[in-house]
Amino acid sequence: MSDSVDFALHPQLQKDCQVVGNLPLCALLLMRDANYPWLVLVPRRAAVREWYELSETDQQQLLQETNRLAKFLQQHTQAKKMNIGALGNMVPQLHVHVIARFEQDAAWPAPVWGKVAAQPYDDAALQNRLTLVRQFLADF
Amino acid sequence: MSDSVDFALHPQLQKDCQVVGNLPLCALLLMRDANYPWLVLVPRRAAVREWYELSETDQQQLLQETNRLAKFLQQHTQAKKMNIGALGNMVPQLHVHVIARFEQDAAWPAPVWGKVAAQPYDDAALQNRLTLVRQFLADF
Repeated sequence: MSDSVDFALHPQLQKDCQVVGNLPLCALLLMRDANYPWLVLVPRRAAVREWYELSETDQQQLLQETNRLAKFLQQHTQAKKMNIGALGNMVPQLHVHVIARFEQDAAWPAPVWGKVAAQPYDDAALQNRLTLVRQFLADF
Repeated sequence: MSDSVDFALHPQLQKDCQVVGNLPLCALLLMRDANYPWLVLVPRRAAVREWYELSETDQQQLLQETNRLAKFLQQHTQAKKMNIGALGNMVPQLHVHVIARFEQDAAWPAPVWGKVAAQPYDDAALQNRLTLVRQFLADF
């Protein structure tokens, strides 16, 4: 686990997201886009681009954190579908998107990426969203 | 594992993809789109929409099949980046996309979905691609 010492969040993720806290493996980020409940998990490991490059233990831990977050978000938002994606064409640092989708959302049924411009949160909506995500962190 | 008896591939996946074979958990499909080396894994379980709805064992098995396929495809195509996605907004049956991406491909750096129309394979290219995927199945 020594490579976590050298971990630093990619500047683009720092810009696009708000850091909410840490899970056992991942930093948990909220995407600054009020169009969707959109979280991002970033394993705190240096120089990893692909899921399969993690150790076997970390691969499974990332899955567990991803699936528990997806289940929590679905249940608390009553989302129609959860979208999970590890793409990274533009930001090479391994990160997993976990997005709650609704038939009324801005991009449905298309994927969220590149569909509509990000919608800034107002203060109240941001605090509501952060409260929910912190509940997930506290219960983990 | 009894629910695999009731498994049937969703008609849309049957239409969009060619079935190549079976892994321990998943049916392995080739997307009929020559723009990208694009495979799809479908757990042979009935009535599952989200990854977290699988049993713990199946969740980990799906990850293992996904990551081994991604690693194999990357190494054999020298892809710049692998894209992994479980979306399912249009096809509710749980399926995982594993796509090899290149800086020269038709959609780079955007995600592949909805970017450009699918490009039919010619016979030779299809046979080459199927030969590669069958090698993965044989080695698994």
